[in-house]
Amino acid sequence: MATESAGSEGGARPKVTITAIAQEAGVSVPTVSRVVNGRSDVSPETRARVENLLRLHGYRRRHTAPGDRAALLDLVFNDLDSPWAVEIIRGVEEVAHEDGVGTVVSAIHGRAGAARQWMKNLRARASDGVILVTSVLEPVLHEELRRLNVPIVVVDPAGSPALDAPTIGATNWAGGMAATEHLLGLGHRRIGFIAGPPRLLCSRARLDGHRAALEAAGVPYDQALVAQGDFYHESGFVGCDQLMDAATPPTAVFASSDQMALGAIEALRRRGLRVPEDVSVVGFDDLPEVRWSAPPLTTVRQPLAEMGKLAARTVLRQARGEEIESPRVELATALVVRASTAAPSTP
Amino acid sequence: MATESAGSEGGARPKVTITAIAQEAGVSVPTVSRVVNGRSDVSPETRARVENLLRLHGYRRRHTAPGDRAALLDLVFNDLDSPWAVEIIRGVEEVAHEDGVGTVVSAIHGRAGAARQWMKNLRARASDGVILVTSVLEPVLHEELRRLNVPIVVVDPAGSPALDAPTIGATNWAGGMAATEHLLGLGHRRIGFIAGPPRLLCSRARLDGHRAALEAAGVPYDQALVAQGDFYHESGFVGCDQLMDAATPPTAVFASSDQMALGAIEALRRRGLRVPEDVSVVGFDDLPEVRWSAPPLTTVRQPLAEMGKLAARTVLRQARGEEIESPRVELATALVVRASTAAPSTP
Repeated sequence: MATESAGSEGGARPKVTITAIAQEAGVSVPTVSRVVNGRSDVSPETRARVENLLRLHGYRRRHTAPGDRAALLDLVFNDLDSPWAVEIIRGVEEVAHEDGVGTVVSAIHGRAGAARQWMKNLRARASDGVILVTSVLEPVLHEELRRLNVPIVVVDPAGSPALDAPTIGATNWAGGMAATEHLLGLGHRRIGFIAGPPRLLCSRARLDGHRAALEAAGVPYDQALVAQGDFYHESGFVGCDQLMDAATPPTAVFASSDQMALGAIEALRRRGLRVPEDVSVVGFDDLPEVRWSAPPLTTVRQPLAEMGKLAARTVLRQARGEEIESPRVELATALVVRASTAAPSTP
Repeated sequence: MATESAGSEGGARPKVTITAIAQEAGVSVPTVSRVVNGRSDVSPETRARVENLLRLHGYRRRHTAPGDRAALLDLVFNDLDSPWAVEIIRGVEEVAHEDGVGTVVSAIHGRAGAARQWMKNLRARASDGVILVTSVLEPVLHEELRRLNVPIVVVDPAGSPALDAPTIGATNWAGGMAATEHLLGLGHRRIGFIAGPPRLLCSRARLDGHRAALEAAGVPYDQALVAQGDFYHESGFVGCDQLMDAATPPTAVFASSDQMALGAIEALRRRGLRVPEDVSVVGFDDLPEVRWSAPPLTTVRQPLAEMGKLAARTVLRQARGEEIESPRVELATALVVRASTAAPSTP
């Protein structure tokens, strides 16, 4: 079990001990300890009574007795093969490292078993905070996590529905608008769009930004110029082929993820079309590798490392008992112009 | 300070207590504790006497009292923007997670200050083992790390000179040979080579494998067909341009890292040359993104995730006091044929 002690670390709240809580609740000290540690061998009534008192007294479980051991943050991904992962790790680690806090990286692969194992490890190592990258846990585990009374922050580049915790995202709508404005500014009027999975809010926001830019420029929105993708490479390849097969193909393609943009470039190459001479391509994400694609990709930068940094700062502030100003923050995206876009050859 | 207890966990050795060591050394228990925890406030003579006795009795610092907290592994990179990083993290995390061990990821950026901060954090969190990705620490820190008496494993895709610890690498020489054999098999005879930094053993091993394949095929080695790179993108771009500027340019280029291969493809694209129709390109690493280059890259796969897995298994075995069979293991590379290589158009 974790080291326990009472009071918010560095905060202004009066300290309250587990012993005092136990007396007030009329239960034993080990029972309070079990509630604090999120264990299941406590009756629901007792748990409710004790949790109530813990909240009332502003009790915050403190994992690290000073000089005992360094603090830890848990950073949890669904999969570590996501192209986002290393950028976010980099941001979180940088902030945590400076604070003497270790960053424990886990992947739970969307499997309940792995998530439960992680939850067990989390409790045992008495982590001081959790950063979830998108809302990767089943609802039943949200409840368990809440019981552990550990600060949680969600980093959410996908805009998926979040659990009740501060969330850090990016300005997907503004990014979609900026990409299409760039293509319009070069003189393109027939602009293909490859959309992300409809269940993700970010997919919708990027498409809406694209439409808003078209409307502002007086260019009619044409459903025939939208292909459905899933953010992965293959769907960009297939989606681009579908757009180019049209009677009047587009002169530019806005793929709403970098991986889909790379798929589109490969589809164009196989058709014997040059980027950007014949067709311009814009992506979304600015993954490190698109600096090195042939040609280097014009794209919308998501500040993933900065999102990781802000997440780490937020969760460390919560661990110190500080208040968080806003439940959701969106960091600005930025258009990065490289070599995959140019004026259309056939106006 | 870390929890201390004596005896190798799960091993067959008899247990020895700190108290017994203190009596035998004629010092106090806190002094032995200071030596075990690698602190500097002990005289060199006392430290030497106590370390001697610790070794003699097979004392191994045990960080985790069972049921106290979950174990931790430290995984240390120079920089997290290395394209290797996420693959290695993935392998280490998978093995550690299953064992209920948390993977603490750090980057020390080759800065002494960051390395010292990490060392301090490592001591405070009482990590059970350390995986260094290449030998990223200054020699003076090796000594401090050794004093902490924590198991260490080095993952070394670069073949850099290692510290005295089990090391896991890849078969760079065999990989270099396989790439060139592939090009020779397609009919290429003028094969350009873009080399990595000469100070890294893996650069030399890849070049030597390339030469061995040429010699086995009776193709003379021509120094004019070798360009010097540094494994990064830009040097592949420049190196390929230099090779193509020759009076008789090569029909194929073996860039000894994937990033350099992507640079070579971009250099050829800018010269109006098609890959693989005009020039074939082979890389080395098999980073995830080269599946999505235009065209998808033929390359030599380094089993980075597997290297991470083996490193985790090795360090966890050491933490349990088990013996390690071999101080250096090289995992096999494998040629992955995709779309960037073909028979030469001009034989």
